[in-house]
Amino acid sequence: MKDKPSPIRETDEEARRLGRRLLRGARYASLAVIDAQTGFPAVSRALLGMDLDGVPVILVSDLASHTVSLKKDPRCSIMTGEPGKGDPLAHARITAFCTAEPVDRDSDDYSRIRARFVARHRKAELYVDFADFRFFRLVPSSAALNGGFGKAYILAGEELTIRNFSFEAEWLHLQKLVGAMTTEADAAARFLKTRETGDWTISGIDMAGFDLIRGDILLRYEFNEPISGPNEILDRISNFSKTS
Amino acid sequence: MKDKPSPIRETDEEARRLGRRLLRGARYASLAVIDAQTGFPAVSRALLGMDLDGVPVILVSDLASHTVSLKKDPRCSIMTGEPGKGDPLAHARITAFCTAEPVDRDSDDYSRIRARFVARHRKAELYVDFADFRFFRLVPSSAALNGGFGKAYILAGEELTIRNFSFEAEWLHLQKLVGAMTTEADAAARFLKTRETGDWTISGIDMAGFDLIRGDILLRYEFNEPISGPNEILDRISNFSKTS
Repeated sequence: MKDKPSPIRETDEEARRLGRRLLRGARYASLAVIDAQTGFPAVSRALLGMDLDGVPVILVSDLASHTVSLKKDPRCSIMTGEPGKGDPLAHARITAFCTAEPVDRDSDDYSRIRARFVARHRKAELYVDFADFRFFRLVPSSAALNGGFGKAYILAGEELTIRNFSFEAEWLHLQKLVGAMTTEADAAARFLKTRETGDWTISGIDMAGFDLIRGDILLRYEFNEPISGPNEILDRISNFSKTS
Repeated sequence: MKDKPSPIRETDEEARRLGRRLLRGARYASLAVIDAQTGFPAVSRALLGMDLDGVPVILVSDLASHTVSLKKDPRCSIMTGEPGKGDPLAHARITAFCTAEPVDRDSDDYSRIRARFVARHRKAELYVDFADFRFFRLVPSSAALNGGFGKAYILAGEELTIRNFSFEAEWLHLQKLVGAMTTEADAAARFLKTRETGDWTISGIDMAGFDLIRGDILLRYEFNEPISGPNEILDRISNFSKTS
């Protein structure tokens, strides 16, 4: 008997970059959990944020069944990457397998995660402080990347997170500064070849890159290599005003 | 101790209609299965078809892990309903909990399901007959409908399927006839208030309504009440040329 041919390609740097961009540049995800009541796999939609270490973050209500399910069994997966026009299967998407960790409202993590999430999803400010809402960090253990027909890859969890990250409060201070760098934000958006020009804002920064938002559009800019620390981010972003 | 307030509204006819339209008018779905290797809930993307009785249909490769998983554990769920512009959570979506039934290639079901699927997804003709591809009927047992913030409903499986359906071969004959009714297809698309005008084709018919396609766009037209049998479908569709 012959083994079936493996459809999985060897993971290269291009695949890792694509996977990170798909995950970090997504406003929302399809979330699969094991339903607490029935044991069925249950898929739903959730807004997606990202913590400083690249770990995906969701904000969910205790009244929603995915939240009840995650409290009982923290195993889950999220899929990001939108089909857009044309054949839905020709568009790249990634499924990250994760373990959900609730974020304690009294922790230092909470204020950081809340600030970053609301900067990305401004309407979430309306309900983020309701008693029944909570954040989960979805720590990835592995991922299946599908770059289109015949382009399947497996990524390790650590290939999606950011190494040598730092949780210093300085990031939040810098976040406020870069939020005012609108010329640079527009230049970065042009660099990413978006059709929507002008009115971009930098909504999130980290060691691996930064997020740009314009209304309900989110773009992810990834550095070629992670920077050495928060002190470097202003320089990197300032460079865009020179090249534009 | 007080019970938590239930976020679930009483299901009315409007909710049932919305749920059916979301499920029957979707080109693709987020599919959640229990991963055969790890036991994790795994979400992926699959093209979606619909059988004559309203049961969702997927076409998947044996090389894909969701197929391996469904063979081991047929419990799954599919989510349809695209976010489009604006807040992703303001857009309606439905999660149908289903049991996957493989479709035997030698069965009568197979030729019907294949013909209907390829009429909806024309590019699938390129690989539908490959030895590793197979259809599953995803028979729904219940569904969670989310019509936007605070509009959650539970539907029963039979509220999503078509009662008194018939699997007569006549449907396939009629399918060919309605495929040529392009004036009526355009009129039905205008009735559904799509912005894309002209060049519509009727790609699928059943007792509850019909599908319209134009390139990669799919629209679902639902009758107010299911028709009595295949003989009635031509009359219903012809009516559109009179009202346009």
